[in-house]
Amino acid sequence: MKPVKVGLCGLGTVGSGTFNILRDNAEEITRRVGRSIIIEQIGARRDNPTCDTTDVNITRDIFDVASNPEIDIVVELIGGTSVARDLVLLAIENGKHVVTANKALIAECGNEIFAKAQEKGVMVAFEAAVAGGIPIIKTLREGLSSNHIEWLAGIINGTGNFIMTEMSEKGRAFDDVLKEAQELGYAEADPTFDVEGIDAAHKLTILASIAYGIPLQFEKTYTEGISRITAEDVAFASELGYSIKHLGIARRTKLGVELRVHPTLISHKTLLASVNGVMNAVMVKGDAVGPTLTYGAGAGAMPTGSSVVADIIDVARTLTADPTNRVPHLAFQADRLSDLEVLPMEEIECGFFLNMTIQDRAGVLANITQILSTNGISIESVIQREREGSELVPLVVMTHDVKERNMNAAIAAIEALPDVAGAVQRIRVENLA
Amino acid sequence: MKPVKVGLCGLGTVGSGTFNILRDNAEEITRRVGRSIIIEQIGARRDNPTCDTTDVNITRDIFDVASNPEIDIVVELIGGTSVARDLVLLAIENGKHVVTANKALIAECGNEIFAKAQEKGVMVAFEAAVAGGIPIIKTLREGLSSNHIEWLAGIINGTGNFIMTEMSEKGRAFDDVLKEAQELGYAEADPTFDVEGIDAAHKLTILASIAYGIPLQFEKTYTEGISRITAEDVAFASELGYSIKHLGIARRTKLGVELRVHPTLISHKTLLASVNGVMNAVMVKGDAVGPTLTYGAGAGAMPTGSSVVADIIDVARTLTADPTNRVPHLAFQADRLSDLEVLPMEEIECGFFLNMTIQDRAGVLANITQILSTNGISIESVIQREREGSELVPLVVMTHDVKERNMNAAIAAIEALPDVAGAVQRIRVENLA
Repeated sequence: MKPVKVGLCGLGTVGSGTFNILRDNAEEITRRVGRSIIIEQIGARRDNPTCDTTDVNITRDIFDVASNPEIDIVVELIGGTSVARDLVLLAIENGKHVVTANKALIAECGNEIFAKAQEKGVMVAFEAAVAGGIPIIKTLREGLSSNHIEWLAGIINGTGNFIMTEMSEKGRAFDDVLKEAQELGYAEADPTFDVEGIDAAHKLTILASIAYGIPLQFEKTYTEGISRITAEDVAFASELGYSIKHLGIARRTKLGVELRVHPTLISHKTLLASVNGVMNAVMVKGDAVGPTLTYGAGAGAMPTGSSVVADIIDVARTLTADPTNRVPHLAFQADRLSDLEVLPMEEIECGFFLNMTIQDRAGVLANITQILSTNGISIESVIQREREGSELVPLVVMTHDVKERNMNAAIAAIEALPDVAGAVQRIRVENLA
Repeated sequence: MKPVKVGLCGLGTVGSGTFNILRDNAEEITRRVGRSIIIEQIGARRDNPTCDTTDVNITRDIFDVASNPEIDIVVELIGGTSVARDLVLLAIENGKHVVTANKALIAECGNEIFAKAQEKGVMVAFEAAVAGGIPIIKTLREGLSSNHIEWLAGIINGTGNFIMTEMSEKGRAFDDVLKEAQELGYAEADPTFDVEGIDAAHKLTILASIAYGIPLQFEKTYTEGISRITAEDVAFASELGYSIKHLGIARRTKLGVELRVHPTLISHKTLLASVNGVMNAVMVKGDAVGPTLTYGAGAGAMPTGSSVVADIIDVARTLTADPTNRVPHLAFQADRLSDLEVLPMEEIECGFFLNMTIQDRAGVLANITQILSTNGISIESVIQREREGSELVPLVVMTHDVKERNMNAAIAAIEALPDVAGAVQRIRVENLA
């Protein structure tokens, strides 16, 4: 069979990984696919010293690639949502299949892009957009396709997990670890995207859409970062048998779909609690299969390249297939998507870990437990500590599951007590089983 | 589009799970596939009270199903390698696609079955044959298709993992836990298949073939069970920071492929060490992606049915596709399989945990370490214990990596020492990173 011709746009980190995998593993890939996959053209503003591109046609204008009549598959690895969007839409318009690693593009412009691809009968593959080298898109869309997905929960940002792991294992402070992560190149100079959960929210948006067959709704995803988590929170959680992880969670309830990224206490016994450092992992609970977990490197040139090239191979295999028989972009047929509502946070039910500072005085704990009880909140455990030479002591309360609305009311009442100093720290608790 | 018609052969545990998933999740499956999947006929010797089959055509002769002209996909869930082989070959001969959960059939007769399927242009899907609900076949064949697979290691027998977990967490003896596993229905009355590693060897044979594109070679898979592991082995391993797990391991070296099932010490820090009870998990190390892990239920009606139905959906999607563009049965094109040699155990290199009983006398340890050194074996750690009122004491030695051939020679020499009582217990050690 004739070779499949790829046009590679972007030769940064992921671009170089993709280039080198296609080169280094070419023989094995051909044995798998039954035809060779060749890089017909590269569109990149500058060369990359890790790639030997001497015999490849390189253009400085990436739009040349999308218009090159020789090319079957355009691989978008430039990032962002403006030029990348124009490039992908042009490639589709020109009848080319697209492979992308761009989570922001899919989460924010995916509905438009998939509609256009559907119209033109081409595929847009995006395995590398979520959790780097972990084939979680394939697992959800195909491997677990017989299941009704109850929930999924993932560590889908390596920077955040590195920070939480260091805080947990070494008792370090957030700022201190963030600085090291920046020095190690794990975190950007402006770390907002990672530590405030925006990157994770992009990925969660995509996962939830393919789990439930709902349109991409990034703007409705609740996002809360880890910068307010203290070493003391981590230590108290650990004493209670919990790790704090920055999770993306999607859950289907009778009322709709929960879509939320926030720091979360999970039991030390959950496999997800043992996922440390920059590694990623996604748990998926299906009604038939029960709980599953998929683990691997969530970033980096080669792991992300691994998913990009796997997508290229998938697309190459279905180039001649009838479009109606392909795996749909959002796992469900485009005309059979669901209008399930994304629930407001006030409707969400989970346990809470509360960490507050109170006056060491008789009756304070009684007042607080009274407020919780009034709001229908039952307590699972309490830690109260003496602090030498201070009248202010920490109080930690773990609650059973309760609606966020009730917890908001209870916290407002607690913070209004004269014997409670400052704000109540609140971290959600999930039972992932 | 017209419905896909399935013929279900076997209505035991997995058959009932498959039946109920196809019924319960029919609406969601149709939204995914774009056409409905219906059970046209069931072939089963007896009814199953968990399935409401009132409006389904049931035959007592399963071969009717393989010859029914209405049926597109024959699902083989009867088990074994004689009738099942005849059934599958007849279905293929009749131009039907096949889905099976039968690990013994694929591991022992897969080469013949795939050749026949290739000739007839039909698919044989077998996700459920390995690790129940975990989509590890799809992950290896498609999700990681851009990688050169360096090694894989899996907990692929739930009964064995339940036993090892109980021995580890509660210090219980093998026989005691096995008896409980039989009472709980996790282990058969004759537990040989599970505890002696034959079931795991079937699954490992399949995983190795799709990792390396080699023909199925069950007869060359080294198989060692867990029945000789003692509570003392488990306790000493734990003291050294290791868990003992029953693993199936395939590794590619310069010389060929290692294929082996045996009890194995792995570091407590490895995620695989936290996989407990009847759960399964498979680690795969690819050259691009690095280490990955996939975890889930390895058995049971619904989890295994989850994989069977996912396969049915996959086959339904490619019914009209050109056979040359399908994912090949063994991941590589049938005419591009490799003749990589399966290595004899003497050629394999790993660390060893040795547990022996010696006379508590000066010079014994010196003699033993001298023998190890003579055979080129270096020691990582040693535990020697006093035992009150006894002249016989345990000695535990952990070694660095060494060829099995050298270890065999060293153990023979150690066992010949007059101060060593009985046989040396030897368990292999793997560094899975």
